[in-house]
Amino acid sequence: MIYLDNAATTYPKPERVYSEMDRCHREYCANPGRGGHVLSIRSGQAVANAREELCGLFNISNTMQLSFTKNATEALNILIKGYLAEGDHVITTAMEHNSVMRPLKALEKEIGIEISVLKSNEYGEIDIEDLERSIKSNTTLIISTLSSNVNGIIMPVKEIGGAARRHGVAFLLDASQGAGSIGVDAEEMCIDMLAFPGHKGLMGPCGTGGLYVREGIKIAALIHGGTGSNSESFYQPDYMPDILESGTLNTPGIVGLCEGARYIRDIGIDNIRMHKHRLVERLHEGAEDIKQVILYSRNDMYKNSGIVALNFKGVAASEVSYVLDKAYGICTRAGMHCSPSAHRTMDTWETGTVRFSVGCFNTMEEVDSTIKALREIASTIKY
Amino acid sequence: MIYLDNAATTYPKPERVYSEMDRCHREYCANPGRGGHVLSIRSGQAVANAREELCGLFNISNTMQLSFTKNATEALNILIKGYLAEGDHVITTAMEHNSVMRPLKALEKEIGIEISVLKSNEYGEIDIEDLERSIKSNTTLIISTLSSNVNGIIMPVKEIGGAARRHGVAFLLDASQGAGSIGVDAEEMCIDMLAFPGHKGLMGPCGTGGLYVREGIKIAALIHGGTGSNSESFYQPDYMPDILESGTLNTPGIVGLCEGARYIRDIGIDNIRMHKHRLVERLHEGAEDIKQVILYSRNDMYKNSGIVALNFKGVAASEVSYVLDKAYGICTRAGMHCSPSAHRTMDTWETGTVRFSVGCFNTMEEVDSTIKALREIASTIKY
Repeated sequence: MIYLDNAATTYPKPERVYSEMDRCHREYCANPGRGGHVLSIRSGQAVANAREELCGLFNISNTMQLSFTKNATEALNILIKGYLAEGDHVITTAMEHNSVMRPLKALEKEIGIEISVLKSNEYGEIDIEDLERSIKSNTTLIISTLSSNVNGIIMPVKEIGGAARRHGVAFLLDASQGAGSIGVDAEEMCIDMLAFPGHKGLMGPCGTGGLYVREGIKIAALIHGGTGSNSESFYQPDYMPDILESGTLNTPGIVGLCEGARYIRDIGIDNIRMHKHRLVERLHEGAEDIKQVILYSRNDMYKNSGIVALNFKGVAASEVSYVLDKAYGICTRAGMHCSPSAHRTMDTWETGTVRFSVGCFNTMEEVDSTIKALREIASTIKY
Repeated sequence: MIYLDNAATTYPKPERVYSEMDRCHREYCANPGRGGHVLSIRSGQAVANAREELCGLFNISNTMQLSFTKNATEALNILIKGYLAEGDHVITTAMEHNSVMRPLKALEKEIGIEISVLKSNEYGEIDIEDLERSIKSNTTLIISTLSSNVNGIIMPVKEIGGAARRHGVAFLLDASQGAGSIGVDAEEMCIDMLAFPGHKGLMGPCGTGGLYVREGIKIAALIHGGTGSNSESFYQPDYMPDILESGTLNTPGIVGLCEGARYIRDIGIDNIRMHKHRLVERLHEGAEDIKQVILYSRNDMYKNSGIVALNFKGVAASEVSYVLDKAYGICTRAGMHCSPSAHRTMDTWETGTVRFSVGCFNTMEEVDSTIKALREIASTIKY
């Protein structure tokens, strides 16, 4: 089996992720912050270590500003709904996932916000001057994905953050695709809010994610409940991370995420990026040689976080993905990938695309087998 | 070490929980519902199996009405905020956790709802006639915990559900304490909505929980995002379970939870209840013999889900819990337990209580050691 669906979730994870989660489960997993006994304290320490490790990865100085969530979707909902108010104008890109667009459209309906989606070229690339021109007096937030989950296009995050900062507008980065192989620096990129999944490029388990909020920015709680703090009060504590971390945390998951982040630190984020680039480059070149193939991703290390998006002319994406799975044991994903406007942008609204998303553990041999499979599929197509 | 903090999270879990989670991680954990390839389908099947297993446990006929969440707090927030509207009146008990009270108090402030807390005796027991008398023309919801996380008192759930049904008011059961050792039957108990954690009595891992909504009841989404369905739309699908399950699920956690539920089915819920009762009974009797001890829990199988709550006269609960941990290696929890009004009810607002919460894997020998420790502590107290 060749797993090329790493943009959905990375598989496999580093061995240390599995083994430390299992050790946490078996040796010490109590409820962190909910008791003074030895296991609760050890669990709390494990969570604190993970907070520190992730803050190191994202260059966040105050570890208390990072909260854990169950996935990036929860993080994005907390940040978007906890920040935006009636009448606010938000600017975003055409390559956003439904985890950004659906909360925005819900707020548009429920409280009345204004949404501007930036124009882009056929790869989804935006123009910073266009972004700056779009800022109005009621613009309070700019949201961008780090890179597209459909074609891997990398956004000019540092430039977006700089423009937002210059105009006094908050910048929310959705790092769902790219965190773990593209450096994310909260300071250098002027990131005011960050949402990330644990189970994709950060190599942690499913069920993990998190968010960061710059000090001074107030986010209203989306989920209220027990925090192990201010226990005598019916009201949510107003400080980070407790305000955004109600209920029992996923301690074993967070331990796994911490190990994923440590793995990345040990291997080196640039080495992971280079490895993924080489795989994407080879797959791109192989696919370019097949005349029936249309490519929607860019073969450029600085413009692609690790995805090859393609179609065979006149063949349904789902059919190609199905054959790759059944006949070749190659796992890809076909369809809209929960990002409808990306497909409007790429002119693949009618067809969707087949997505090949590489990860740390894919090999050149796997890519070569995939190219061979694509060639064979091409040879069977009759026009 | 003797772990008596099972009301915070059960520890350890059955071996099959650990081993199946690890197997899921290593062998097949892709993103369920997000692709058509073999691993995604296998992950989807594992989630479907868990849905079925839990519905079996709670006597829920339509498995599509059960959604997975990260914990019971998220489930309660989804249900409470997704159901109540401006001007609604909600009735609840004095023994509710902050995972119920904080969302309610937030709604009271934000949209204007009316909250009635039922009177109770010193154990938190309510009177059904009083409940019925509290129902008004704008009452839309009754919320009760299955049992208290502070003193274990079991609520008359079937009677509450019956009263709610007779008056045409919806009934939300918070099964955080008790699910897994007290039978919960959605039909027999007239439960319209149910919230449960995976990591307590159901013996699953931290990071899991879920909810049930009776068919016909509409719950607005709290978290919007990718659902793997209606992918072309900026709006959330309006059907269960997708409407309430945005973002990547915690598949390995859900697999673990399924194994926890299977373990309970294999052992038999009544056997677990009886085992916990015997432990509580022995600990109660041992504690009753110590003249400095004040007990706040009831020694009655039908009125206690597995908690002994006590104080030593004139000694801070936190001090007792600290000594138990440091000198005896006994893990308990002291304080408010995120349930302030329970302590108003029990007249322990000033002191909090020490909570001993037993689980499946505790033994009579552990209880005897705990009684011995309590006796020794008592002997050191000078009045």
